[in-house]
Amino acid sequence: MADISFETAHTADAPAFVAPTLVESVMATIRQRILARSLTPGARLPSIRAFAKSMRVSKSTVVEAYERLAAEGAIRSRPGSGFYAAGSLAPLSLAEIGPRLDRAVDPLWVSRQSLDAGDEVLKPGCGWLPASWMPQAGLRRALRTAARTDDVALADYGTPLGLPPLRQLLARRMAGHGIEVSPEQIILTESGTQAIDLLCRFLIEPGDTVLVDDPCYFNFHALLRAHRAKVVSVPYTPSGPDIDLFAQALAEHRPRLYITNSAIHNPTGAILSPVTAHRLLKLADQSDLTIVEDDIFADFEHASAPRLAAFDGLSRVVQIGSFSKTLSASVRCGFIAAPRDWIDGLTDLKIATTFGGGRLAAELVLTLLKDGSYRKHMDLLRARLARAMAETGTRLKAIGITPWIDQPAGLFLWCGLPDGVDAAEVARRALADNVVLAPGNAFSLSQTASRFLRFNVAQCEDPRIFKVLEAAMAR
Amino acid sequence: MADISFETAHTADAPAFVAPTLVESVMATIRQRILARSLTPGARLPSIRAFAKSMRVSKSTVVEAYERLAAEGAIRSRPGSGFYAAGSLAPLSLAEIGPRLDRAVDPLWVSRQSLDAGDEVLKPGCGWLPASWMPQAGLRRALRTAARTDDVALADYGTPLGLPPLRQLLARRMAGHGIEVSPEQIILTESGTQAIDLLCRFLIEPGDTVLVDDPCYFNFHALLRAHRAKVVSVPYTPSGPDIDLFAQALAEHRPRLYITNSAIHNPTGAILSPVTAHRLLKLADQSDLTIVEDDIFADFEHASAPRLAAFDGLSRVVQIGSFSKTLSASVRCGFIAAPRDWIDGLTDLKIATTFGGGRLAAELVLTLLKDGSYRKHMDLLRARLARAMAETGTRLKAIGITPWIDQPAGLFLWCGLPDGVDAAEVARRALADNVVLAPGNAFSLSQTASRFLRFNVAQCEDPRIFKVLEAAMAR
Repeated sequence: MADISFETAHTADAPAFVAPTLVESVMATIRQRILARSLTPGARLPSIRAFAKSMRVSKSTVVEAYERLAAEGAIRSRPGSGFYAAGSLAPLSLAEIGPRLDRAVDPLWVSRQSLDAGDEVLKPGCGWLPASWMPQAGLRRALRTAARTDDVALADYGTPLGLPPLRQLLARRMAGHGIEVSPEQIILTESGTQAIDLLCRFLIEPGDTVLVDDPCYFNFHALLRAHRAKVVSVPYTPSGPDIDLFAQALAEHRPRLYITNSAIHNPTGAILSPVTAHRLLKLADQSDLTIVEDDIFADFEHASAPRLAAFDGLSRVVQIGSFSKTLSASVRCGFIAAPRDWIDGLTDLKIATTFGGGRLAAELVLTLLKDGSYRKHMDLLRARLARAMAETGTRLKAIGITPWIDQPAGLFLWCGLPDGVDAAEVARRALADNVVLAPGNAFSLSQTASRFLRFNVAQCEDPRIFKVLEAAMAR
Repeated sequence: MADISFETAHTADAPAFVAPTLVESVMATIRQRILARSLTPGARLPSIRAFAKSMRVSKSTVVEAYERLAAEGAIRSRPGSGFYAAGSLAPLSLAEIGPRLDRAVDPLWVSRQSLDAGDEVLKPGCGWLPASWMPQAGLRRALRTAARTDDVALADYGTPLGLPPLRQLLARRMAGHGIEVSPEQIILTESGTQAIDLLCRFLIEPGDTVLVDDPCYFNFHALLRAHRAKVVSVPYTPSGPDIDLFAQALAEHRPRLYITNSAIHNPTGAILSPVTAHRLLKLADQSDLTIVEDDIFADFEHASAPRLAAFDGLSRVVQIGSFSKTLSASVRCGFIAAPRDWIDGLTDLKIATTFGGGRLAAELVLTLLKDGSYRKHMDLLRARLARAMAETGTRLKAIGITPWIDQPAGLFLWCGLPDGVDAAEVARRALADNVVLAPGNAFSLSQTASRFLRFNVAQCEDPRIFKVLEAAMAR
C-alpha cells in the first residue's frame, strides 16, 4: 500500500470494504512493492523483525506472510540470508495495484461482467444504452453510404488530427455550448477512454497526484492505476464537488490534474452549478491545476449546463467527448479539444501510440451528424430516457430504493438502499440470478458508497430486475 | 541527455547528425531535465560554475544558455539567488526527449509528412500501400454486409477479448505458421501499434531497457520514448540481429524486452534465419528476456520463414499482427497472441485504457477473411509487389542506388546511396519537389544509416520519383 496509494479527502469514516487478515495485508504490501518495482527482482526483503515493526504486526505474522509468498513463488528464501524478490517478470497487474477490492465491486470486474454478458443477462448496472435504442436505420444507411465512398476513405490512414470536416463540425457543436474552439484544436481519437488516456500520458508522470470526484466513473480509477497515479477523491454534491474539501485537497496534495464530468455527472446525474464552476476555476488558477472535463453525456442534456471549458476558454481545461453512448460503441470515435499549444505534442503521442486513427469510424459519424439523423435520434432519445427515468424511479421507490436527486437528465439514477442493506451483497446475489448491478463502492475511492447502486434507466425495462432486486435485498 | 538515454551496441562511429552549438546543447540538457522531471517546477538549477564544469563548457556558455531559457520562460532567475525551473506545466514532449534530431529524420516527422500528404505528393517513403492496391470491392461488399447485420454488432461494445469467431480464425491462421495458440490467448486491439503499446504498458516500467534492431521500424523509437524506456539497438544483418552483439547487449544492459519483426523485417526486408532464431531464443532464455514479435507483414511472405513464437511456443515470445497493411488502415484491427497467464492482466489494461474494442472493424475483417476475398487479394498482391520490386530495383540501380539485399519479399527496398551522398539531405531536397522519402537515420538509433533510404515499391510507380531523386542526389 506504500507505493501507489489511494486516499480520500473525506473526513467521513471509510471502513475497509473487505477486512483482510493481517497476514494477507503483509502479503499484499510485499506484492505491491514487487509490482511497483520498489522491490526489484533479486532485491532482499526487509528483515522479519524490521518489517514487523514498520507494519505494527507480530513477527510471526510476517513469517507466515513470507512463507506463503515463497510458496506462491513471489519471493525466494536463501537459508541463512533472508528472503529475496523472485527474479521472473512481474507484469503490471491492475488487479493487484491499489486497494485489493472484492471482485464484486472491483471497477474492472463490473466492466467485464457487463461487456461479457450474454443475451440472457439483464444489465441495469451497465453504462450504455441497449443496441435497440441506438439509431440503427441511420447506422445502416451510413454503412451503405460508406460502401460507395472513395478508395482513400476506405483503405488509407486518417490524417494526424483526424477527418477535417468532422473536426469542423465538432467545433461548431462546441460553440453551441459556449466553447470557442478552432478545428485545429480538435484531435480525433478512437474513443472517449482513449482520449483521456492520451491526455494522462501527456500531462502526468507516474507518482503524480490526480483528483477525482467521489463517486466518479469507475473506469477513471482503473485508468489512473494504469498510469500509476496517486488518486485523491473529493465528495461530489448535487451541485458539483464539495468546494471546501476541494480547496483542502489542493493545498494538501498539490494534484496536477482533476478529471470530472461537469454536464451530467456519472454516476450521480448531478449538474455543476455556475457558482461552483466559478469557484472551482478560481482555485484551479491559483494552484495551476489542469482539468480534464469529460463531456461524453453532453447530448443527453435537456438544457445546457455550465461547462468549465466554456468559462475557462480552453486554457487550463481540456474537453473530451465521444459518440459511444449516443450513436454506437461499435463504431469507435472520440475527440479532444485542447489548448492550441498542446496540439503538436498530443499529435506526436497519438501517432507514437496508435499511428493513424480509424478513418472509417470518423466517416460514419460524420455522415450521421450531417444528414440530420443524429439530431432527430437524440430528440427522441431524450424523451424516451425521460419516460424511462420516471418509470424506473417509481418502480425503485416502490421497493424502498430512493434516488439521490430527483429526475436527473441522462441515463443514470444514483440510488440509496434501505438502511442496513449492503449494495455489494445485493449485487452478488443478483448476479446469481443473471442481473448485473453496479454497486456504489465501485465508483467510490473512499469506499463510502456501500449503500448506493447506479441504475441505467434504459436497461431497466424488464420487470424481472425489480423482482430480483427485491429478493436480493430481503435475504 | 542524462535521463532518457539512447544508446547503441554498435562500436561503429556514429556522427551526430546535426551539430548543435554548445549553448544549444546546454539548453537541451536543461529542457530535458525539466521534461523528465529531474528538475521539477520551482527546483533550483545547478550553479553556473558547477554546470559549466560538469558539461565541460565555459561559464559564459552556461550563462548564455540560462539567459536564453529564461527568455523562453522555461526557467526563471531570482536576482542574487540563481535560476529556477519555471512553475508551469511541462507536458511530455516526444520531440524533446531523446536525441534532438533534425526534423527531416525525426521518426514522427516522417510519419506526419506521410499521413498529412495531399494527392499532389508522391510518397515512396511511406509505410503502406496505395488505397487503390487494397481490396476495394471486398471492402465495399463487407460494408454492405455489415449494413444488414444485427443491432448488437452495429451499436454495442465488443467483448473484452474481442469478436470470438475472428479470434478462432486468427488462431487457425497462426497454426499455419507453426504457432500453437488457443483463441483464448488472442486479444483484439485497434491496431498493431496499439497492440505493442498495450504490451509495453504491461511489460515495462519507465527507465527499463528495451532492445530494438538497428535499423528498425521508426515508430518503435517514438513509442518507446512515450514509455520513457531506455532504448538500446543491435545491428541487423541479412539473417537477423548480429548475435554476438546481441549477447553483448544482453550482458551489458540487461534489457527486459526485445521488439523485432522476424518474418519480413522493416525496413530491410531481411528474413530471420533458423540458426539465428535458435541462438536468439537460447540467449533470451538465459537472460529471462521477453520478446515482442511484430508480424504485421506475415501475409506478404512467399514462403513461411521461421517465427520466434513458433519455436518458443508463446512462452516468452508474444506475437502481434494487424490488417492495416493488407486490408485497410481505415478499418482498424490488430491483435496480440500472448502466453495464457498474461491474458487477464492484458484484458484489464485494455478495458482501462480503451474500454471495449471497435466491434464493427472486427466484423468487417472477419467478413473479408471468411468469404475468401482476403486470400485472393493477397495472392494477387504478392505477385503485383514482386513485379514492382523488380521494376523499382532496376530503376534505382540505373541512378546509382543499390538495394541492400536482392529482391526481398514485402513492400520495402532498403537501399544504399552512392558514396558521399547524404540521405537526409536528399530527403529534404526531394520534399521541396513534393516527394516524401524515408531517410535511413529515421530508422537507426545509432544514426549510422545516413547513406540509406527505404523505398516502398508500391508507391514507386510514378517515374517522376526517380527524376526528383536523381536531381536531389546530383546537387
